[in-house]
This record gives sequence, structure tokens and C-alpha cells, in this order.
Amino acid sequence: MLLEIITIGDELLLGYTVDTNAAHLARELASIGVSIVRRATVSDDANDIASAVREALDRTGAVITTGGLGPTSDDRTRPVIAELFGRDLVPDEERWDALRALWKERGRGEIPETNRTQIMIPRGATVLTNRHGTAPGIWLEDELGRWCAMLPGVPREMRGVLADELFPRLTARLDGQQRVVVRSRTLRTTGVAESKLAELLGPLANGIDGLALAYLPGQEGVDLRLTARDLAPDAADAALTGGIAALREMAARYAYAENQTDLASVVLNECDARGLTIAVAESCTGGLLGARLTAIPGSSSVVIGGVIAYSNGVKKGLLGVTTESLERHGAVSQEAASEMATGVRRRLGVDIGVSITGVAGPGGGTPDKPVGLVWMAVDVRGDVRTHGSRFVGDRAEIRFRATQAALDLVRRMVAG
Amino acid sequence: MLLEIITIGDELLLGYTVDTNAAHLARELASIGVSIVRRATVSDDANDIASAVREALDRTGAVITTGGLGPTSDDRTRPVIAELFGRDLVPDEERWDALRALWKERGRGEIPETNRTQIMIPRGATVLTNRHGTAPGIWLEDELGRWCAMLPGVPREMRGVLADELFPRLTARLDGQQRVVVRSRTLRTTGVAESKLAELLGPLANGIDGLALAYLPGQEGVDLRLTARDLAPDAADAALTGGIAALREMAARYAYAENQTDLASVVLNECDARGLTIAVAESCTGGLLGARLTAIPGSSSVVIGGVIAYSNGVKKGLLGVTTESLERHGAVSQEAASEMATGVRRRLGVDIGVSITGVAGPGGGTPDKPVGLVWMAVDVRGDVRTHGSRFVGDRAEIRFRATQAALDLVRRMVAG
Repeated sequence: MLLEIITIGDELLLGYTVDTNAAHLARELASIGVSIVRRATVSDDANDIASAVREALDRTGAVITTGGLGPTSDDRTRPVIAELFGRDLVPDEERWDALRALWKERGRGEIPETNRTQIMIPRGATVLTNRHGTAPGIWLEDELGRWCAMLPGVPREMRGVLADELFPRLTARLDGQQRVVVRSRTLRTTGVAESKLAELLGPLANGIDGLALAYLPGQEGVDLRLTARDLAPDAADAALTGGIAALREMAARYAYAENQTDLASVVLNECDARGLTIAVAESCTGGLLGARLTAIPGSSSVVIGGVIAYSNGVKKGLLGVTTESLERHGAVSQEAASEMATGVRRRLGVDIGVSITGVAGPGGGTPDKPVGLVWMAVDVRGDVRTHGSRFVGDRAEIRFRATQAALDLVRRMVAG
Repeated sequence: MLLEIITIGDELLLGYTVDTNAAHLARELASIGVSIVRRATVSDDANDIASAVREALDRTGAVITTGGLGPTSDDRTRPVIAELFGRDLVPDEERWDALRALWKERGRGEIPETNRTQIMIPRGATVLTNRHGTAPGIWLEDELGRWCAMLPGVPREMRGVLADELFPRLTARLDGQQRVVVRSRTLRTTGVAESKLAELLGPLANGIDGLALAYLPGQEGVDLRLTARDLAPDAADAALTGGIAALREMAARYAYAENQTDLASVVLNECDARGLTIAVAESCTGGLLGARLTAIPGSSSVVIGGVIAYSNGVKKGLLGVTTESLERHGAVSQEAASEMATGVRRRLGVDIGVSITGVAGPGGGTPDKPVGLVWMAVDVRGDVRTHGSRFVGDRAEIRFRATQAALDLVRRMVAG
């Protein structure tokens, strides 16, 4: 099945809103065997919508639109596409009663008459119920089997209608057909450069058994994305499962999770399973490591707290970093990092102390201690390991990469 | 001037990459008076590229493409568009020498011959120099004045070539023409609901003197975006300056900055100007407030540090929160927040202590203390103010909104 996506709206076309709907739709549809052949964005203008939809229907006979279904005069998707299909708009009075009840329920009082535009449905169309908002989706099909599905533009609503209504409908259409899909799975690695990783992967470095392998370097490390194309759904899943297992073996200790999982979540699970508690001591990251750990629901069973030791006074006063270390080696040093980790472990009475101290920039660098230099330390019940790195990027990147490296040091020490 | 944008690449079409180039291009171009009438995304396939570009040239005679300029066999933009314009590709040997030198300079050794594809330029085309990567942009124009500008797909490179090469070229073309632009400015507000803000704005609530007003509610508050359309550049800027000043007066103490400026940066400036130092005491936000403050370069002149008091033990041990308060009122209470703020101020010897304690969810809520309930306190040299709020959203939103409200409390106390 081939189709085109048309996203509608002045805000999108003018670039005030980045179009995340199109990417979400494309990924989800490809995973069930629908190929997107083109994507377009047009303004709210009726002529622009009409010509884009007409051209797309001529090419593929299948179109999904997003946006322009609201109650205001800017929202022209419904009447324009109804006209393209030669249908008039008829009010759906049941829907009006439901909408009126919803407004009252939400304490908004009597619904304005202008909202009646939202219940005007092209004759013969099927309503795609929107459980997350007031603008319903619409499915319109002609006698030749050409169809257009109109989805709302608000991403949360679009995703809801897609999952609840459109996905089942498309899957049913594809059922029985010899369908092939595009599906992906990602193995996350950190602490290893792309070129080194390719070496480690050896014979798998360029893909596995017809699965394409993409290296996606980012602040969290290098993600390895395997993509199965043009396989039947079951075959794709089996190939991906085997492929990920093979990659995991080769990437060994650098692999920490799959898909979107955050390293902080992996670390918390490892600690929780062993009954270990953790505290952080942060200088240049100023709380970012603590924020990442506590972003995970349930983190309070592991994370006790921490000290943001931005000034040397706090490093000494609350963490017991020695004046001697600071004077001889400086605040950004292996020694200071080590004393910070041990200091926070003892002070907060936890099993694991983690510290970060570095030069995040853009100012403050010296020939000896350039911007990007970061020292980290982890103290697990008295067993201390330190790690120094020179990170590239701007201030935000250096800080984030430092938290990632510190978390990885914890992971390796805890998981062994 | 009307034009169309075509972004090229399988990754974009499959939704693995969200297309941020298109939005950036549209905003920038609109600001100098170029109207984007349509945007499309196609695969790396030569036929798909050719038909999309041909159709766009037929409609508007002006096209900007991104992507497909690299050295691999997937990169077909250059030959396909050269053929559309009836041009052959000729090698640019000077460019080859420069590229070869660059590779050596970067320690990559001898450049592979495959990279020669990147110096193949359509006959008669103008090279748009890329200072941030190896794939140059290309400007191609026919005798009828129809043109296509090819830009690289990597966002940083695309932005560079746009700013350095394409922007000046387009501005020169528009010079002397009666041009009208689309430009925007945004006033940021926080701590006030959209409906209340509309009331405050009174007669300006629906726009000012032909400037459109958009309410953009988000985690940071409600941004007010004023947009001037179809005005000459100078008139647009003058109208926006006047409009922002008028909005600022009506929004009064809720307005804290313009455009992208973060509230943390505003707070740091206010403190710095008065020589005030600051420390944080965070429970449910776990370091996020500290992370936001220290994300700003130069924050070390104001931020001394803080305590992440995730557990009650840390609240008592490091911050001096009393057992009585915790037992009688609980960790999420006005009393605990107040003691945390004063505790961290004294402990770290600073002018301002800021605290946050709340129920971030998804678990941990009770009928008395539901998910989203957050208490904040600010102690400025002994003058303590507290603020309780019930935030909506998921864990991440509740935490972020809490840091925003705490920062705003500091801003109001410090700025008076």
C-alpha cells in the first residue's frame, strides 16, 4: 500500500511549528507495511489544500491529512476535501449533543454555535472518533477505492485517532495481502567511538543478513539501529531479534539498553536489584546528574540526595574535599573528584557516591585544564574508581556527556 | 517572491529524522520577504526527486532543496537536478585540491576517489561554499530565470550555507523590489493562565494595529507572539517594537523576557546586578533547578551550590528541617519548604535560599497531597516567602513547572 501525507497549516508552513506529526505517521505506517511515497505541507488556504490533495490522490489514491479540522474559519480541510470527493456536508446531530454535554461537563457552559462546523461530516464518510479532543477525524472513500483520512493537527489528538481508529482500519485492509514492512530496533551503546565500535562489530559492521545497520552518534553515545525492510511482519521481527542479540554480543560491555531507554533508568535498576543507595556530588553539572536520576519514576528507592558543590567552599564544607587537594591539583582534578565521591557517600550515608567536576565552558579554560576536561569518580562502599575525559561540544553537550559518562562508570562498577 | 522547499532523504520520509530544516528555512525566508507556498519531502530515489522538483519549478519557478549532496550512491540530488536543467556535470579541480588538503589537515589521510562526486558541479552553476562540511551547496538558474538552490541536509551545514551564501543572494534579488515580510517577536510570561492574561491585555487581547497575536501556552508559561505580515521590513520592525512595549505594559509583572530567553538567565542577571548569591534545596526536582541555573554560562558568580534533599534524612541532616515539621506537616508542606530554604541559605552562607518539595508522581499521591502538589520557598536574607501550587502534567512537566515557579518567585522578590 502506497500513500501520501499532507500536513496542513500556516503555522507549519511558516516554520513556527516543527512538523512532528509527519515523522510519527511515517514510522508507524511503515511498521505495518504502508509506504509513504511523498509528504507535503500546505497553508490553510482552500486552493492550496485542494490542489495538493487532488495531485496526491491522482498519484497514489491514498492520502492522510493532518490539521484544519477545528471550529474556526481557518479550518478548511473538511469542506475542501468533501468537495473534491463531490460530497456535501451534513450535520451529525448525535455528535452535537455529545459535544454540548462535554462542554458542560468541563465547566465551560453552553457550547458556541461556531462549533457546529465540527459536526459537519461529508455525506457517506466515516467518523474517526477523537477521544483526546473535540475535532473528530474523518475517513472518506470513493467508488474507485480512493480514500482520504483526515486527522486532527494537535499531535496528542493525531496520535490517539491514529492508534484508536486508523491503524486498525488499515491493518484490516492489509490483512490477507502479502505485506512487507519496515521495522527497526535500536541497541544503545556509550563510552565508545563510532570507529572503535565498527571494529568491534567485525563482520557485522555493515549490516546483518539483509538488515541495514545505521550508526547514530549523539550525546548519549552511539545508537545502533537495525532496520528490516521489505520483509513479512513475522520475518522482520525474527530477523531483528536475532540481529540485536548478535550486536549485543559484539558490543559487549558498551551496550547498555535498547530503543529509548535512558542510562539513568538502567543504573537505577541495577542498584535497586542489589539494594544499593546512591548520592551525587556535582560541580560543573550543577544538579543535572541528580535531575536525570530523579526523572525516573520510583527513583526514591535508590537516590537519597546529593550536594551541588559549585563553589570550592561547598566542596570543602559539605564534602570534606581537602584544601591541599584543591591547592595542589585544583577543583578539576582526579583527586578532587575522588574526595567528592567519597565525601558525599559518607556524608549522606549511602552505598555509592558519584562525583563530577570539570570545565563546562565557554569560559574558564586554561592550557592545563581546557574547556571540556571533566573528572568523575564513583565510590562503591570504599572501592573508588576515577575517570577523566575531554568532551567536545558546547556547554550543554559537555555537561550532558559528563553525566552520561558518570552514569556509565556506576553501571560498570555495579554490574561488574 | 514565491518558492517551494523540497527536503530529500529516506530517513526523513520514513520518519527516523524529524525535518527541522524545513521550519528553519521557512522562518528565515519569510523574515526577508520570501513566501513559501509549499513544502514537500521525497525519498532518495532519482525519479521521486525529479518529479517533485519539476512540478515545483512549474508552479513557482523557485525551489530550495536540502539533502542528497553527499559522496555516496544515495546522494542523487546533484545529477538529477542538473539533468532537469539540461546541464552536464563538470569537475571543479580547484575544489578537489582544497578537499584533499582538508582531509590531510584533519588527519584522515588520502581522500577516497568516491568523494570526487562532491566536486561534480552542473555546468554554469554557482557554488555556495559550505564552511561547516564537505558537501558544497549549488545555485542553478536557467535562461528564463527559474532557479534551484541545493543545500546540504545536515542542519548545521544547511544553516551555515543559508546564512553565508543564499541569504545575501536572495536579499540582493529582492532589493529595490517593493517587498513585504513576515516577522515575529515574542513576549514571555509566566505564572498566569491564558484566560487571565487575555483579560489583562484588555483591548490588545486580539491583536494590535494589524499585528496578529498568538497565545502559546507551554511548560514555561504563556508566550505571546506578535506577527507582522505583509509589511515593509522597517514598518514591520517598528510595529513589533511598539506592540511588544504595549503588551509588556499590560502583562506587567507576569512578563519576564523576550523571544527565547530562559527565566533562569533573567534571575541570574537580576541577582548579579545586586551582588546576590544563591543556593538551592531540592526535593522532588532532584537537581533540576540547579541544573537550569548552572546551564547559563557565567552562573558561578551567583550560584554557590545546593543540596539535593530527596530523602527526609538529608532534609534533616543537611538542611536542618525539624522532625516536628516533617511529622506534623509532612515533607511536602509550606513548613518544610520554608525550613529548607532557610536551611540552605544559612548552611551555604548565601543571600538567597530557594527550595522545592512536592509530589511529582506518577505514584505517591494521597487525597491530602495529590500528584502535582508542590511547595516552594524563597529566603532572601531572612525575608521568606512561600508558594504552593498544584501543577498538571506528567512527572517531567510537574518537575519543570515547579522549577519555573520557584525561579519566578525569586525574580519577583529580587526585582521587587
